[in-house]
Amino acid sequence: MTGTPDEALRHDCELQSMRKTIENRLDSLLPQTEENDLVTQAMRDATLAPGKRIRPLLMLLAARDLGCAPAHPGLLDLACAVEMIHAASLTLDDIPCMDNAAMRRGRPTIHRKFGENVAILAAVALLSKAFGVVSSAEGLSDAGRAQAVSELSAAVGTQGLVKGQYQDLREGCEPRSTEAIHTTNDLKTGVLFSASLQLAAIAANASVAARNRLRSFALDFGQAFQLLDDLIDGLATTGKDMNKDAGKSTLVSVLGNDRVHQRLREHLRRADEHLAFVCSHGAATQQFMHSWFNQQLAVHPAFMTAPPLCQR
Amino acid sequence: MTGTPDEALRHDCELQSMRKTIENRLDSLLPQTEENDLVTQAMRDATLAPGKRIRPLLMLLAARDLGCAPAHPGLLDLACAVEMIHAASLTLDDIPCMDNAAMRRGRPTIHRKFGENVAILAAVALLSKAFGVVSSAEGLSDAGRAQAVSELSAAVGTQGLVKGQYQDLREGCEPRSTEAIHTTNDLKTGVLFSASLQLAAIAANASVAARNRLRSFALDFGQAFQLLDDLIDGLATTGKDMNKDAGKSTLVSVLGNDRVHQRLREHLRRADEHLAFVCSHGAATQQFMHSWFNQQLAVHPAFMTAPPLCQR
Repeated sequence: MTGTPDEALRHDCELQSMRKTIENRLDSLLPQTEENDLVTQAMRDATLAPGKRIRPLLMLLAARDLGCAPAHPGLLDLACAVEMIHAASLTLDDIPCMDNAAMRRGRPTIHRKFGENVAILAAVALLSKAFGVVSSAEGLSDAGRAQAVSELSAAVGTQGLVKGQYQDLREGCEPRSTEAIHTTNDLKTGVLFSASLQLAAIAANASVAARNRLRSFALDFGQAFQLLDDLIDGLATTGKDMNKDAGKSTLVSVLGNDRVHQRLREHLRRADEHLAFVCSHGAATQQFMHSWFNQQLAVHPAFMTAPPLCQR
Repeated sequence: MTGTPDEALRHDCELQSMRKTIENRLDSLLPQTEENDLVTQAMRDATLAPGKRIRPLLMLLAARDLGCAPAHPGLLDLACAVEMIHAASLTLDDIPCMDNAAMRRGRPTIHRKFGENVAILAAVALLSKAFGVVSSAEGLSDAGRAQAVSELSAAVGTQGLVKGQYQDLREGCEPRSTEAIHTTNDLKTGVLFSASLQLAAIAANASVAARNRLRSFALDFGQAFQLLDDLIDGLATTGKDMNKDAGKSTLVSVLGNDRVHQRLREHLRRADEHLAFVCSHGAATQQFMHSWFNQQLAVHPAFMTAPPLCQR
């Protein structure tokens, strides 16, 4: 658990307030909807539908831990850019020729609501907008902007989200080794967490050593995140298609719940170690990670008997 | 015609050599194909299939006219980034839920060869790669890189290619005013020409006045380019689906061939005027524009009786 009940409540309130700030800024960065313009409506729907905002939160908290001024004028925009890329990738993952998902975040998927062509155009526009937002983020040096664009480009491309989705499409329903599943999880989840933290590091002018350690943290965090997602899949409370990974080879289907629980704990332990090396200014990121994973367990009755994953 | 036959031949040889240089650089910038990786194969196929390379050529020639050193180390990469974006947009335009085209550049379209999901992932990876290439282009200041990313982001997004494709999908088969068609042509064609020329201007450190004039040039050039494309559509020599715009309202279907010819000449005349204002260091861009439009007419028997569009 995360400190005393009072502390936990304060932490939750703060996260809620940060989510609101992120969503307000997303709202103003995204193009306003014009009549008959389904593409901008779809962009807004894909991005502003209720979400956990875990990538932008992680970025903002890590930047704080790295000593970045809370009033940094461009940090919030970097966080929004990452969320736009995430929204674009979910939109594309759901379309009929990919995962063909009907529901996402408790709502009909973007292509079901707006049509497949609009969904694809909205995803392309979101990706492109994200790069535009980063390239003009205030309070960042031009070198920082260029570096941030490079990080995001690498996270999306053939060594990132695109490759992860392709591997999942090609091999997801075949028997896979645990190593192959681990690699796909890195690509589908870890690389965008990693880019989020690199953007935090760029805004905070962090050292090369800190940036390297943040990459390691992000990959462990991403693996833990994906394992929890696999454990939860099949429960009715996710807002996504129920049991959408049925038939897909995941670490849960290969190793079983208990060993996945063990792995999850191990990734979180290592994530903690990496963070301790990096964050000399506080432990906001650690607190977030701990409370987030423990809360996920608490709301899913299937895990009620398990001890907390993270303990401070 | 473009000067003496000797001059025209020299010009053609130079363009061929520049195309080869662009294609070699694209080849080395794109990820190498690994076995079983259809996405990188599709990215390479979409980009390296024989093409006119008109956007990168225009950029390189305009940069020369603007006084940019021929040995500028990053200019070629900027040109390749624009060609990647163009290839991504063609790939997406062709998929079943967009224009559902079977042939492009005389070959089966990317989704027919690799599958729709791979085509979409390849397009996303190409877009993302283009931003990455620009963000690390050598010989450019960091400010120049950030500006170039902003230009490309705007050209792709909801005020650029995405909006043009959406308008074409939504209204293309309905009766449209000439103004509406003109606007869609700007979005589908003009904005990426404009971004190409802005990247040339950034590499050449051109003045704000020159950059503004280049935007006007690009829009006139883009309109002329699209009108020629509409005139040519239906002839069997394009390598695309024959008469794929049948049923679409184009300026040719609304105004007829003769008035479109007139408009085309008027756009080229204005393009010439804008160029004359900008290019104090030479007339490579003008020569390219003139010879390109005249050659297009010469190879299409339907226009054999028409006088050259451009005269020096």
